[in-house]
Amino acid sequence: RINPERLWESLEEMAKIGPGIAGGNNRQTLTDADGEGRHLLKRWAGAAGLSMGLDRMGNMFFTRAGTDPGALPVSMGSHLDTQPTGGKYDGVLGVLGALEVLRTMNDLGIQTRRPITLINWTNEEGARFAPAMLASGVFAGVISEDYALSRQDPEGKRFGEELARIGWAGEEAPGARKFHSYFELHIEQGPILEAEGTDIGIVTHGQGLWWLEFTLTGKDAHTGSTPMHLRRNAGLAMARIFELVQEVAMAGQPNAVGGIGQVFFAPNSRNVIPGSVTFTVDIRSPDLGKLSRMRAAIESGAAEICAALQVGCAVEPVGHFDPVPFAPELVARVRAAADHLGYSHRDIVSGAGHDACWLAKVTPSTMIFCPCEGGLSHNEAEAITPAWAAAGTDVLLHAVLETAEI
Amino acid sequence: RINPERLWESLEEMAKIGPGIAGGNNRQTLTDADGEGRHLLKRWAGAAGLSMGLDRMGNMFFTRAGTDPGALPVSMGSHLDTQPTGGKYDGVLGVLGALEVLRTMNDLGIQTRRPITLINWTNEEGARFAPAMLASGVFAGVISEDYALSRQDPEGKRFGEELARIGWAGEEAPGARKFHSYFELHIEQGPILEAEGTDIGIVTHGQGLWWLEFTLTGKDAHTGSTPMHLRRNAGLAMARIFELVQEVAMAGQPNAVGGIGQVFFAPNSRNVIPGSVTFTVDIRSPDLGKLSRMRAAIESGAAEICAALQVGCAVEPVGHFDPVPFAPELVARVRAAADHLGYSHRDIVSGAGHDACWLAKVTPSTMIFCPCEGGLSHNEAEAITPAWAAAGTDVLLHAVLETAEI
Ligand SMILES: NC(=O)NCCC(=O)O
Ligand SMILES: NC(=O)NCCC(=O)O
Repeated sequence: RINPERLWESLEEMAKIGPGIAGGNNRQTLTDADGEGRHLLKRWAGAAGLSMGLDRMGNMFFTRAGTDPGALPVSMGSHLDTQPTGGKYDGVLGVLGALEVLRTMNDLGIQTRRPITLINWTNEEGARFAPAMLASGVFAGVISEDYALSRQDPEGKRFGEELARIGWAGEEAPGARKFHSYFELHIEQGPILEAEGTDIGIVTHGQGLWWLEFTLTGKDAHTGSTPMHLRRNAGLAMARIFELVQEVAMAGQPNAVGGIGQVFFAPNSRNVIPGSVTFTVDIRSPDLGKLSRMRAAIESGAAEICAALQVGCAVEPVGHFDPVPFAPELVARVRAAADHLGYSHRDIVSGAGHDACWLAKVTPSTMIFCPCEGGLSHNEAEAITPAWAAAGTDVLLHAVLETAEI
Repeated sequence: RINPERLWESLEEMAKIGPGIAGGNNRQTLTDADGEGRHLLKRWAGAAGLSMGLDRMGNMFFTRAGTDPGALPVSMGSHLDTQPTGGKYDGVLGVLGALEVLRTMNDLGIQTRRPITLINWTNEEGARFAPAMLASGVFAGVISEDYALSRQDPEGKRFGEELARIGWAGEEAPGARKFHSYFELHIEQGPILEAEGTDIGIVTHGQGLWWLEFTLTGKDAHTGSTPMHLRRNAGLAMARIFELVQEVAMAGQPNAVGGIGQVFFAPNSRNVIPGSVTFTVDIRSPDLGKLSRMRAAIESGAAEICAALQVGCAVEPVGHFDPVPFAPELVARVRAAADHLGYSHRDIVSGAGHDACWLAKVTPSTMIFCPCEGGLSHNEAEAITPAWAAAGTDVLLHAVLETAEI
């Protein structure tokens, strides 16, 4: 078993970097705080005898040697970046849980045949730079490196320049290193495990996603002196598309979600009819056909709404992945580890996207979920118990040891 | 008649200060550009032999002496501040038209019995600091000085501090000086005059307004892993209130308008259900009873919408004026001046708020409108012709001379 106190202390220590405003974290990708978090991880990994590899996307790899130098490494990890008002565990548990697995192996003097690699993926959240899971997407060959490096945040800063600025751009070609398998421990970010009192979620699939960035173009005009019938109101069109997304998601129940999280009005002045509104629609389903139909319904409905208001409508997909089935043999191994350790478990589908969803394209992959309070995530109040964290990390340890072969 | 070339050159010269991004202006109140525009006006007024008074709200007063030192001055003016993406004439024409009137009087050696005062009012637009017409409101005694000085822009900067920072806070108590009357020349900001080919709008009334600032409080949560029925989506509530405002305005046709121009989502991240949305509703009507009913319908409808979505709803009025009738004797004098000069004219109601609406509380006041292309304002593409500007300024000259008594 892992050392639950050491794991919890490391989680608390990391949470001091990039504190939020309400007890959580704002350690967005490629900020100074992200850089500081990376330094702390590197220091801890160094103390555990691990040396670092760094690729051109800033992905960090720490490897513990195996007895068979020719064998591909078993890998595990997640991400240290957070939402602007994020929690202390989303992503962080997967990285520091993996570190705890390696520390425990050191404590117990365990040797494996395969090397084991701990990974911190850059920009999983996609909050500053869309899409989410950008750097694992480049690693997996589904997103081009040029596209990724040129992505801009809302202030127009580029991913590549910000990565260089914080000093974490490496030399290694993304995707050059190969793995035998990939495991990711993560909080559920949904309400199921806690509501049932289940310790462990055995993640069989990840649901698919589209992020659609809309740019609506009406005409700035005075709110007081422009008659209603002469308005070309991009804000009103946005409001109607918001309702449409809600309807499409509700029509897809039970296995569909949809919403709008990011909206920019321009010129954003109280007495100006908004001439331009940009926003991103997020729709998801584990059912590929349904996901495609949702996207089509939203794009055609939005076009109709805008045409009726004489508002121009441009749509650019800025994030996408199909529903992902995880590797059955690894799923079975996670289930066996939970059984062996005596933790209650159930199969579950991931509602969120994860680096494991991209890794699954290039190496057998799976995930382990632990509960979080009220299913709350992407909120500074995100919370877990030390016992939940320990159970998930124990299962990670056993599944990884089994795969790396003692 | 005034000198149309000189007027036009001054308008062009002022437009160089705080240039916009598409040919208009961004000279928002209490920015460095506002300070620079004030210096230019002061220099021009000094060259015309006028010395300046400055009150604690930054309102600027330039007086040309009359032959009767005991007589109250006739005043005229408007504002030099603009929207973030504003035009070159909204407000500016009223200030520089008034300057042209005084320059013409100098050219022609005209003496009046009453003194004449040119005024530049601070923060008419309300874009940076709500409400609009803030400093003329303090001058008129309808807004308290403390309230005005403590208003904050979206970055949390205070009006009083920003006024001091740009160096334009005076010593004079706002409202201490009294006027015989107030005239304001302004572009219509609506489509009527241009569509009819009419030179001059005789403004008989200004419509009333409410600005209602809503703060909706839901719960930040993950867009992918939070089931639809567990969401408390402040963004969806905002979208429904947007539609409600549109319905209420349409139900009030023909003499009502309503919209939402400024919206802030928080945390404004693509994969976070918005936990908090703030926005300002702008509703207007020349009919006081209708305006009150519109406000009530929006507040009660919004409360229902929010209750159904388990979203908290707080409303704060941040701007208000009742419909204003202008002084009949001044309205008649403007009409007589237009007749005398041979300009076509029609009576009109102002859709926008103006400093004249507050001045009307403390001194007989009225306005003169000239057309603007396509009725477009609060847009960098706002445009007028030199001939329209000259006609309005000619009418201002004659109405003011008649009132100040030659
Ligand atoms: N796990 C997680 O929150 N990932 C961010 C990408 C997503 O929105 O699903
Ligand atoms: N004239 C003008 O645009 N005033 C700004 C205040 C308003 O929104 O009416």
